[in-house]
Amino acid sequence: MTQLQELRHAMARAGLDAVWISDPANVRAVSGFSSGKDGKVLVTQGTATLYTDARYTVQAAEESPLTAFIARPPATLEHAAPALAGLRVGFEADHLTVAALEDLRDHWPQVTLVGVQGLVQSLRAVKTPGEIQAVRDAQALADRVFAEVRPLIEAGARELDIASEIELRLRRAGAQSAFDLIVASGPRGAMPHGTASDRVIQDGDLVTVDMGAQLRGYHSDMTRTVAVGTPGAEMARVYRAVLEAEEAAVRAVKPGVRTADLDRLARDILTGHGLGEAFAHSLGHGVGLEVHEAPSLRGTSDDVLQPGMIITIEPGAYLPGVGGVRIEDLVLVTEDGYEVLSVSPKELL
Amino acid sequence: MTQLQELRHAMARAGLDAVWISDPANVRAVSGFSSGKDGKVLVTQGTATLYTDARYTVQAAEESPLTAFIARPPATLEHAAPALAGLRVGFEADHLTVAALEDLRDHWPQVTLVGVQGLVQSLRAVKTPGEIQAVRDAQALADRVFAEVRPLIEAGARELDIASEIELRLRRAGAQSAFDLIVASGPRGAMPHGTASDRVIQDGDLVTVDMGAQLRGYHSDMTRTVAVGTPGAEMARVYRAVLEAEEAAVRAVKPGVRTADLDRLARDILTGHGLGEAFAHSLGHGVGLEVHEAPSLRGTSDDVLQPGMIITIEPGAYLPGVGGVRIEDLVLVTEDGYEVLSVSPKELL
Repeated sequence: MTQLQELRHAMARAGLDAVWISDPANVRAVSGFSSGKDGKVLVTQGTATLYTDARYTVQAAEESPLTAFIARPPATLEHAAPALAGLRVGFEADHLTVAALEDLRDHWPQVTLVGVQGLVQSLRAVKTPGEIQAVRDAQALADRVFAEVRPLIEAGARELDIASEIELRLRRAGAQSAFDLIVASGPRGAMPHGTASDRVIQDGDLVTVDMGAQLRGYHSDMTRTVAVGTPGAEMARVYRAVLEAEEAAVRAVKPGVRTADLDRLARDILTGHGLGEAFAHSLGHGVGLEVHEAPSLRGTSDDVLQPGMIITIEPGAYLPGVGGVRIEDLVLVTEDGYEVLSVSPKELL
Repeated sequence: MTQLQELRHAMARAGLDAVWISDPANVRAVSGFSSGKDGKVLVTQGTATLYTDARYTVQAAEESPLTAFIARPPATLEHAAPALAGLRVGFEADHLTVAALEDLRDHWPQVTLVGVQGLVQSLRAVKTPGEIQAVRDAQALADRVFAEVRPLIEAGARELDIASEIELRLRRAGAQSAFDLIVASGPRGAMPHGTASDRVIQDGDLVTVDMGAQLRGYHSDMTRTVAVGTPGAEMARVYRAVLEAEEAAVRAVKPGVRTADLDRLARDILTGHGLGEAFAHSLGHGVGLEVHEAPSLRGTSDDVLQPGMIITIEPGAYLPGVGGVRIEDLVLVTEDGYEVLSVSPKELL
């Protein structure tokens, strides 16, 4: 619940008397409520109320120390209205829909509504020790499952079979897949987001597996590209180039570094190998209550690394019609550098 | 692509020259693009353009017959701006965030932006024959998987084991779970949305399994509550009451019926058994590209059943600290009545 105190400081700095939190991950961050997406939190300097409906009466009491008000909209808004009259109330402009804002305006005519962006997200970018442990546990599980499933990635297996084995093992461990698993073999590797299909893996294929565990609400994220049999010389060259870019970017991780500079570093290495155009996405992102969250490791980002951030470093190269490579590690920013949380091997063969 | 023509008629009726579609399920409905959530569609009376980024270059060409423009925002908005100058352009107020609307305003200063709600959703509520077949296939798979897994629901099994077996079988069939599987046993059955935990199922428990398949983008949805051993007399009574309400509501399904009246019918039966308060949610919802879509079977809904709609009928009763029951069928509204698509048995024992 540290987040709640930090949030009140951030509210005060932004000149807000209260904030209406609608983004589910932010709701969880400040309330603990983790069941379902139909929760909202109203935070003032003196109060914090969780609003959800009767489907979640039991979970609200179990998961959140906040006072819960159980009702469906618009009763929730009507309940909150009297205490908010005359106040400046922030809403999450990057989550709240235009229609939902109209609802707030209709029910809170005496409130000054102020759009804010990234208010809770920026607090979430730096993890608490408990959160770091949660992501660490999720990644340890993912590494274990990848090691178990790695021998199944062979000629004759379907991409789907690999994906289902990973999901089964995550489930049995009380976790679940953090996102739609990517298992992209051979030419399908040219799709950065090629979710598992019924394609049968062939001898000589590279196979990209992008997987994560969601465990107790926290996520992990890791990609490995593995060779089945002996890959062609061209794709082996691409692999080495991506690995070089990935390892260089990881080694550059430390507090104070601009994420845009990390992206540039990896991109320049790939460009030097003639693969700049083939690297068709940003270098990475933060991971926590969401699998994609702050900071952004995009070339246009203003974010700066701080101790306690957990990020991915995931350069790739995608050659339409031929294949692709992505290598992704999950990296904790420490006080003086970095710790790689993902330990699965990166040898191609 | 019938949806696109119907959409242009609806646009004309609403006085719109164009519509900017951001909701992923609506994007898919009008474009066919089904990979990832980062697609947008701009539809005018003469053009239809799919906007997505370079991660999806291959999928955009494979999945959608529309002209694709591959770029990241704001290049997408800049690309669209010249052709839209002076026009009235609808946006999805129930999906677009306040911040995203500001982006549109910034990049399209000469456009009159008009918030619309449910424009594409209402077209999606009535399914095409191809869509009905897709949902039918998803439900047939779910019925088959439930029959396979049903013998595993016994004392000593963990809820998680049931859930992971269902997911594995869905995956092997090229599908995936349509939503977070609910396996709620004994007292956990009092949580309408109690996702599978590591609780060990006990003799005498009722176990609620709410499961769906997502197959080729379309969903199914079904709930069964089954007894392990001999349930207590009270929960057996609750089961019979919920089944009575469920079957009565299913029998009342036909074109022209107000969904609010169906909710009322089921609710009145449960109230007659002293369980009105225990039925803590609405009777059901439409199912298609989303697992929850139009129409709504809520007591406050104005929706009216039409042939080609696919809905759930899912009354339940939840007794905190004791347990719960929900029975849910997937029902197609036919020309003169209904067809129940979910065929798994509903006997308690």
